[in-house]
Amino acid sequence: MSQNVLGYAATAPASDLAPFGFQRRDPRPDDVVIEILYCGVCHSDLHTARNDWGWTTYPIVPGHEIIGRVSAVGSAVTRFKAGDRVGVGCLVDSCHTCPACESGEEQYCDGATYTYGGTDRHDHSITQGGYSEKVVVSEAFVLRIPDALDLQAAAPLLCAGITTWSPLRHWKAGPGTRVAVVGLGGLGHMALKLAKALGADVTLFTRSQGKEQDALRLGADRIVLSTDPAQMAAVAGRFDLIIDTVPYVHDLNPYMPALATSGTLVLVGYLGALDPFLNSTPMVLRRKSVAGSLIGGIKETQELLDFCGEHGIASDVEVIRIQDINHAFGRMLKSDVKYRFVIDMASLKA
Amino acid sequence: MSQNVLGYAATAPASDLAPFGFQRRDPRPDDVVIEILYCGVCHSDLHTARNDWGWTTYPIVPGHEIIGRVSAVGSAVTRFKAGDRVGVGCLVDSCHTCPACESGEEQYCDGATYTYGGTDRHDHSITQGGYSEKVVVSEAFVLRIPDALDLQAAAPLLCAGITTWSPLRHWKAGPGTRVAVVGLGGLGHMALKLAKALGADVTLFTRSQGKEQDALRLGADRIVLSTDPAQMAAVAGRFDLIIDTVPYVHDLNPYMPALATSGTLVLVGYLGALDPFLNSTPMVLRRKSVAGSLIGGIKETQELLDFCGEHGIASDVEVIRIQDINHAFGRMLKSDVKYRFVIDMASLKA
Repeated sequence: MSQNVLGYAATAPASDLAPFGFQRRDPRPDDVVIEILYCGVCHSDLHTARNDWGWTTYPIVPGHEIIGRVSAVGSAVTRFKAGDRVGVGCLVDSCHTCPACESGEEQYCDGATYTYGGTDRHDHSITQGGYSEKVVVSEAFVLRIPDALDLQAAAPLLCAGITTWSPLRHWKAGPGTRVAVVGLGGLGHMALKLAKALGADVTLFTRSQGKEQDALRLGADRIVLSTDPAQMAAVAGRFDLIIDTVPYVHDLNPYMPALATSGTLVLVGYLGALDPFLNSTPMVLRRKSVAGSLIGGIKETQELLDFCGEHGIASDVEVIRIQDINHAFGRMLKSDVKYRFVIDMASLKA
Repeated sequence: MSQNVLGYAATAPASDLAPFGFQRRDPRPDDVVIEILYCGVCHSDLHTARNDWGWTTYPIVPGHEIIGRVSAVGSAVTRFKAGDRVGVGCLVDSCHTCPACESGEEQYCDGATYTYGGTDRHDHSITQGGYSEKVVVSEAFVLRIPDALDLQAAAPLLCAGITTWSPLRHWKAGPGTRVAVVGLGGLGHMALKLAKALGADVTLFTRSQGKEQDALRLGADRIVLSTDPAQMAAVAGRFDLIIDTVPYVHDLNPYMPALATSGTLVLVGYLGALDPFLNSTPMVLRRKSVAGSLIGGIKETQELLDFCGEHGIASDVEVIRIQDINHAFGRMLKSDVKYRFVIDMASLKA
């Protein structure tokens, strides 16, 4: 038994997303069935639809910033009931037994199942994401959305939010630390809000003029134009942590002098070659690091959602209809969104 | 007033080191005058003599693994007296007031004065190193050599030793951690000894066969031939810390899969471009870091010397005459030394 579901899928690297009917499993004992209300639009959705990373299986329904309401639960589910406000992020399962899972860092489990394009651990089907009517997910990977959060604006917390929250927490951003953010998009604007709410001193690096008012509103204490040598020299040795959200290849070398001794630049948006060559000299001379970080674990994601509920933080969003998704992808490529598209899934039935 | 001193200096990038007479200052109140008994031969000596890094001022007397005996002290010196066994490493002064100095990490002080090629903070003279009869150094930068240590074998602790000790301590190598070392030279052989004595599980990565017996003797629990895909696959995800001692450009990418989640590869031997391009993908997918580390602070160096005295650890050395230094540089370039040349400075007067 299974359920017919309508979604939007890509069927080839060059194809637009289009309506696509597929099956969702009937709930297993540990499953939660979720009617999807909203789904954020992440750069990864676009990379996957176009097979930029070479691992896409078609057809693929993207979407891993899922907000919805529980419509049914399996017999063994204890923490959720019909009507609950819930979210699903980038992960829907993991092995539950490895050191990463045992430490609540399921994102680093070798057997983690991604929300779309993953392989279900039980029936070996390919998972499909949140650009759809409903989703069926094991209770352990379902998040609770605090009542204080607006559902539309909460959606991007499930990827853009946790992707910046996890390194901020791992590298201990807080009072007395100086954090800089590279790039002001979906991830970058969340990094500003979260770093500020954690008590850090917050700077935005940007390559383009005109973002100052928005950056200050979002939580930056100042902006630094990374193309201006004088402004860059003025922040030499300043930052304990730089969160680099840029999702395409770019030169990291200009940012390295801005790190303090023992500071770390963390890539959260870019997978691929560090081109041009990264220069190790400033790293050796001042014990600096370049690191990467991937989304976050379930416990950490719930921590983020609760923190956002308490601090009144969510994403700045532009709500769109699913029929406008291909246009939205095009605008996202031009960074023409402040700061995250969120699909109102009611439009699917329009 | 000053004192005439004989040393060996390079006078141009392509010149051999040759005898060179120069002046050492008479001791200031805080100075210790040291008759040099032994001086280790570091790759940095060669890089500096040949101006590989572009910052050499000629003539230059290299040498920053200095072991000697105190012959006189300034009026304000309290911790040393004539006859004491002492050492001087890569640093002879710093600003004493910045956060790095206040935390005992003088190596990261912007005003640190290197033992050779540095600029004295008071008289602005260029400092000259330990390939010489004597050296005059502020008390705060003089190390005490434990009685248990052989003086010849202790010399390399002052650079090769502290350069590997500092990252082992900073990244918390010890019981329950898995450490790998890349390269079996002066730094690499100290890294094996120190990581083992700290209680870590220790692996040597090597590109050449035939090092197994020596590596096991020095402290490795195993060796992995980095050119063998099967051996590399067998250690995927294994290491919390990789200490990379290779002093020339090389590909880091083969080592990245061997890091555990949240693991760090630390460069201690190479300054320059990471060529070929470092791939960020394994870094992001498993929160891995590439970092650098520079020698160590004075407090940390004394800690190392005391640790080595307690654990009976020193360098494996080949003692040479100063007249053989140019030949030794040539052998060092071919990695033909087990594992550090140390100059017997009595040969200067022969």
